[in-house]
Amino acid sequence: MAEIKTVTVNTPTVKSDIYCGEGAFNKYAADLVSGKDIFVVTDSNVYSLYSNLIKDTFGTPPVYIVPAGEKSKNERQLLNILKAMVAAGLRRNSVVIALGGGVIGDMAGLAASLYMRGVQIIQIPTTLLSQVDSSVGGKTAIDFCGVKNIVGTFYQPRYVIADPLFLNTLPAREIRCGLGEIIKTGCLNGDIFDKLTANANNLKDVTFLKEIIYDCICHKAYVVTEDERETTGLRKTLNLGHTAGHAFELYYKKKSHGEFVLIGMYYELYIAVKSGICTQQYADSIIKLIKKVITVPAYGDGQKACMLSKYDKKNERAAEVSMVVPREHGKTAELKLPLDEYAALINECANSLKG
Amino acid sequence: MAEIKTVTVNTPTVKSDIYCGEGAFNKYAADLVSGKDIFVVTDSNVYSLYSNLIKDTFGTPPVYIVPAGEKSKNERQLLNILKAMVAAGLRRNSVVIALGGGVIGDMAGLAASLYMRGVQIIQIPTTLLSQVDSSVGGKTAIDFCGVKNIVGTFYQPRYVIADPLFLNTLPAREIRCGLGEIIKTGCLNGDIFDKLTANANNLKDVTFLKEIIYDCICHKAYVVTEDERETTGLRKTLNLGHTAGHAFELYYKKKSHGEFVLIGMYYELYIAVKSGICTQQYADSIIKLIKKVITVPAYGDGQKACMLSKYDKKNERAAEVSMVVPREHGKTAELKLPLDEYAALINECANSLKG
Repeated sequence: MAEIKTVTVNTPTVKSDIYCGEGAFNKYAADLVSGKDIFVVTDSNVYSLYSNLIKDTFGTPPVYIVPAGEKSKNERQLLNILKAMVAAGLRRNSVVIALGGGVIGDMAGLAASLYMRGVQIIQIPTTLLSQVDSSVGGKTAIDFCGVKNIVGTFYQPRYVIADPLFLNTLPAREIRCGLGEIIKTGCLNGDIFDKLTANANNLKDVTFLKEIIYDCICHKAYVVTEDERETTGLRKTLNLGHTAGHAFELYYKKKSHGEFVLIGMYYELYIAVKSGICTQQYADSIIKLIKKVITVPAYGDGQKACMLSKYDKKNERAAEVSMVVPREHGKTAELKLPLDEYAALINECANSLKG
Repeated sequence: MAEIKTVTVNTPTVKSDIYCGEGAFNKYAADLVSGKDIFVVTDSNVYSLYSNLIKDTFGTPPVYIVPAGEKSKNERQLLNILKAMVAAGLRRNSVVIALGGGVIGDMAGLAASLYMRGVQIIQIPTTLLSQVDSSVGGKTAIDFCGVKNIVGTFYQPRYVIADPLFLNTLPAREIRCGLGEIIKTGCLNGDIFDKLTANANNLKDVTFLKEIIYDCICHKAYVVTEDERETTGLRKTLNLGHTAGHAFELYYKKKSHGEFVLIGMYYELYIAVKSGICTQQYADSIIKLIKKVITVPAYGDGQKACMLSKYDKKNERAAEVSMVVPREHGKTAELKLPLDEYAALINECANSLKG
């Protein structure tokens, strides 16, 4: 039987334990909430697959079911979750369980951070993306007024249970989505990059994924422990690929977050090479991985789309875009460009893809 | 000219400087935001009195004006504030200014804690209550689904400017309201209690109030520095009088928060004496102060009203009410009672007031 590993995030306000590996759900889920009032937030897809697992593990707790999909990550759903928490009579010592992907983790985390100024939350991520990235680190959010994640909190989950059990039911697209954040993490951590390169032909293989999930969680836990609130610059590196990625996501919508991260990485790699920050050779080794997962589209409206990044939280000034780009093996750089220059380069990259 | 004093709150996440005294607004307000994008949240009463002061101090920043009154402390206003912050293009380095009483401070604080997961907030309390109590300590909230402060965050203001300048325009009722929290603080701090007793006949005198504001802020800053998140029990003492107070506030509505705190203190003092926690003699010395400020009503529906306290955040279990009561000079005790027993005692106290 595979080993369950524990990773810890330590911040000024909380210690967060992450149980990672096959069997973690069965071993920990029920025990961690024993004797407590719980409240489960999940989505319609996950509930249809796992309502029996919820029952067998937690009995019949109140469950709030969010319609599956990114569109649900809004203020209406957030208020409905909070309303259901009041109706369930949750108290300060109650526990919220987020069972689902990034949307559920972000929203349930925000609701838990707000209810009575904070009740305990346990993240049980069910997608590859939420296991390797969003369930760890305590960023919670909703999208609001057309801006991604603009309303949220920093609120660490007390526990995270990342069990590959849930990967078996994931559609292929969700695996691509998770690989977006995994390849991004590879740009931040040379060891992970080497593993990805060595396994370039079996990135979607479950045995490989199980191993890399743990590596990615370790990297993220280290970053969050060092720089929970994004003040030293370290946590900012996790946004690699996300500036163009978020803009494309807002404009083109149809793909998943992780796919847009990969596309954003590709476009911003182009900018990094053009700006002399990154060699073509290193860029090519990343592009090779990206292309194993998706076909990068030539966005005709790329220039228009990336105007949306002017609302990006990461920018400190209007008309200036900030992004983190790969520099060399395991290293990144922060690059700031005037919005118009940035948009022109995005356009140039789109044209190069048409050629 | 009177001295401006500085009090500091130190928590794991932020250092909060409180400038207290006459002239503090003129000396600090403009300087603290120099070169930054600001966003002012205020209410219709304050704006009608101080729109010129805002202009003279801050130029023409975006201002969001909340309709004056407790009823505005709801999710609709919160979302409108956040919407206006997005429309104003606020960034991570922008600063929110809360210019108003407790409602404004609580809501603007919550909005600031949520926008981009936290932008800086400066509290400029304009009422006696918000100067002595709610502007310090970082509790933010809205009322939701009929429960007081059930949705909120812990989020320290970077600065607080408590300037008696604003007291001149306060209606008498607002002074009574502030005295509610001041007398409550007297029950927690023997030195403040002695000052109140010595000045029992001039509690509403502005010279006296200026002195006691500073004392109350010092006491609260000490409590919050020691126990920001209400985990050790120390911060809980600030809730003295608030269990019955909140229940009466929800049920009877018409009085102000501070008045209900005084009424709640009176009713819970009755319970403290009955339970043998507090001597009649010490209770009488507190009651003497309460009666200098308000006439305590004999609530016929007290029993019904206090059923509302079953939703109180402070309770750890259903059907059990938790409250902090005066024990002896400068000391308090926590008392937990079954809800029905509590309600019966509230009723008994109401009857004794009719007698």
